[in-house]
Amino acid sequence: MDYITELTEKGKAAKQAARKLASLSTAQKNQALIAMATALETKQGIIVAANAKDINRAQANGMSKPLMDRLLLNETRIKTMAEGLRQIATLPDPIGEAIAGWLRPNGLAITKMRVPLGVIGIIYEARPNVTVDAAGLCLKAGNAVILRGGSEAIDSNMAIAEIIAEAAYAAGVPAGAIALVETTDRQAVTAMLKLNHYLDVIIPRGGAGLIRTVVENSTVPVIETGTGVCHTFVDATADLSMAQDIAFNAKVSRPGVCNAMETLLVHEAVAEQFLPTMLERYHQAGVVIRGCGQTMKYHSAVTLATDEDWAAEFLDLILAVRVVNSLEAAIEHIATYSTRHSEAIVTGDYEHARRFQQEVDAAAVYVNASTRFTDGFEFGFGAEIGISTQKLHARGPMGLPELTSIKYVINGNGQIRN
Amino acid sequence: MDYITELTEKGKAAKQAARKLASLSTAQKNQALIAMATALETKQGIIVAANAKDINRAQANGMSKPLMDRLLLNETRIKTMAEGLRQIATLPDPIGEAIAGWLRPNGLAITKMRVPLGVIGIIYEARPNVTVDAAGLCLKAGNAVILRGGSEAIDSNMAIAEIIAEAAYAAGVPAGAIALVETTDRQAVTAMLKLNHYLDVIIPRGGAGLIRTVVENSTVPVIETGTGVCHTFVDATADLSMAQDIAFNAKVSRPGVCNAMETLLVHEAVAEQFLPTMLERYHQAGVVIRGCGQTMKYHSAVTLATDEDWAAEFLDLILAVRVVNSLEAAIEHIATYSTRHSEAIVTGDYEHARRFQQEVDAAAVYVNASTRFTDGFEFGFGAEIGISTQKLHARGPMGLPELTSIKYVINGNGQIRN
Repeated sequence: MDYITELTEKGKAAKQAARKLASLSTAQKNQALIAMATALETKQGIIVAANAKDINRAQANGMSKPLMDRLLLNETRIKTMAEGLRQIATLPDPIGEAIAGWLRPNGLAITKMRVPLGVIGIIYEARPNVTVDAAGLCLKAGNAVILRGGSEAIDSNMAIAEIIAEAAYAAGVPAGAIALVETTDRQAVTAMLKLNHYLDVIIPRGGAGLIRTVVENSTVPVIETGTGVCHTFVDATADLSMAQDIAFNAKVSRPGVCNAMETLLVHEAVAEQFLPTMLERYHQAGVVIRGCGQTMKYHSAVTLATDEDWAAEFLDLILAVRVVNSLEAAIEHIATYSTRHSEAIVTGDYEHARRFQQEVDAAAVYVNASTRFTDGFEFGFGAEIGISTQKLHARGPMGLPELTSIKYVINGNGQIRN
Repeated sequence: MDYITELTEKGKAAKQAARKLASLSTAQKNQALIAMATALETKQGIIVAANAKDINRAQANGMSKPLMDRLLLNETRIKTMAEGLRQIATLPDPIGEAIAGWLRPNGLAITKMRVPLGVIGIIYEARPNVTVDAAGLCLKAGNAVILRGGSEAIDSNMAIAEIIAEAAYAAGVPAGAIALVETTDRQAVTAMLKLNHYLDVIIPRGGAGLIRTVVENSTVPVIETGTGVCHTFVDATADLSMAQDIAFNAKVSRPGVCNAMETLLVHEAVAEQFLPTMLERYHQAGVVIRGCGQTMKYHSAVTLATDEDWAAEFLDLILAVRVVNSLEAAIEHIATYSTRHSEAIVTGDYEHARRFQQEVDAAAVYVNASTRFTDGFEFGFGAEIGISTQKLHARGPMGLPELTSIKYVINGNGQIRN
């Protein structure tokens, strides 16, 4: 089957399924999620065997160790995926919520209801657990989903998608609601980005390159996720011990994720007191430091930062450090280089805290806490489909409500308009 | 100045302005709106003179009477535009609203705040009043705006934009917050659609052709507006007198707008009783009727509808009429041909009303009322920037809150993530 036929057929089936999904009860959706979890566990042998094919191919192609680790599935990881589905089943169903309602002077009763988005396209990279996670979240929010994972994980993804879709359909989910694009050719992605007739939204999950490709080529509405050039500003009045813990945590606890700090800004009034110890602590932890001229004075391991470094999302144990002379200079630096993901100030000054939160434009703006908290689970959403860095529709961590739209339901008794 | 330079300069200035606009107080924004209104009135001579140039050019180009009427500005219309701005000043300011807030177990206090979108691009056609209206709404919601009106209205738009921008800046609005693209070349639109670095969203307002061009070519997120293939279904249990008034109002009260009905569906059980009178009433009102085979039996003026007619947005005194044999058939017809704008059922059956509202996928779903009510003012929003027919970000009539985004403001006291 060529990819155009594949996408059209799956798109058509998903759109059909979406209509029925919108009316599925919470109990039915939860039963399906639990059935999907059980199926993953009982059929884990099939998944591990399929995954072995991906791993062998990756090995032959010389894939790096960290990437190979992301690709690997074993009993523990399959159990974690299954637990994720059971967890989604326990979350409140967003569909059917009356967000607002009012009566017009002419007697029309208007209710703003939460409804599913319809059909969601998810384009992602190597990690096969996204297949389960995205399918589960889309289903709980009443959406059909068309999944397009990385070609490296195609065998794992096909096995997983077949198992969970079969279990879901047996539990009453309409056929076509969970589809995986099997064509690994990149042209299939290009075609998916133009599937306006069938897709209501596309969410890319992955590196900056994937996201750029999707944003630049999609005619389907996109929710841009991910890229995080996050800053922490240590103000003149900061509790320096707190600042050290926050700045260390923001960089080192998990450098490969989007909410990790990439640039540390330090007020010049505390630079001499704060930076030597801080830089040494980073150095001990293996962090490569690229600093401004003044930062270089405080540690011999610091090399001179370039303009590219200020704009870089390192996703690694690399940090840019700059000494600034005021709150305004810090805010200005952030406005210039930030991707508007997560920004933090460590300060003891009430007015600086207030101004930083007001003036910095980002999905999450922290006072005296690590940027690493920008996450659906840490925010208490119980789930996360990604972190939006755009301003339209959703911003910051996206949970189930972000996978919904609204509908106005209006009840009258014969009203006509003058 | 070439259009690339123009767009880049205006984009840059708008982005700068947007940062300051986000912190402007409600009082400042309202004062600016009132100053803009006053300026329109005191400088109406300039506007009328500029408009005369557009009108003369239109006449020379043989523009149709209705389009010319849309283009025309006179004292009354300028007064209406000014009143519109004063009305916007009276609306509640959406910015700064705390939509939700909660405390996490680790002590982090999270507040979900309403913030401006940033820079909004509006692309529209002949009507110069959109220039005022869009600028006023964007300003009230704290956004900078880049306006791109139709070339037919360029002289009017330039005069209006200069007058309102000057008045706004004198009242404390940052320079660059209200910009009009002066290049009338179509390439300027194409370039605007790729202005991702400066624009946060583009809202097209106009005909289906304009909207398609924007959706297909924009890499900036778009809010799709407008196209309405709206239906009214007269059920077997409908109060036929009510049904007649609703169906007549939905088609005839203002056929050129997107919430006007384009197709009337009638349950076969009442077709014989309902249609002859109804069709005659339409006929008397000058409505051209294209019907299914059965509909043709009830009035001699009915011609046979084609498949294109079921999908057509006539925006005129033309109506498609089809007899269906069940609620399900009506819902199915709507699912096939609807643009998901506004759909109505006239029924006396509780379960049919419930099912129609549940199963029909549209921005507004009516029971026993005219589709013509889908409108920001009729919904009580006090304003309207357009009617969204997409599901992302906004759906249905868009008021001030739809011109905003959110930001998570998080207060801690040293939290770091494990």
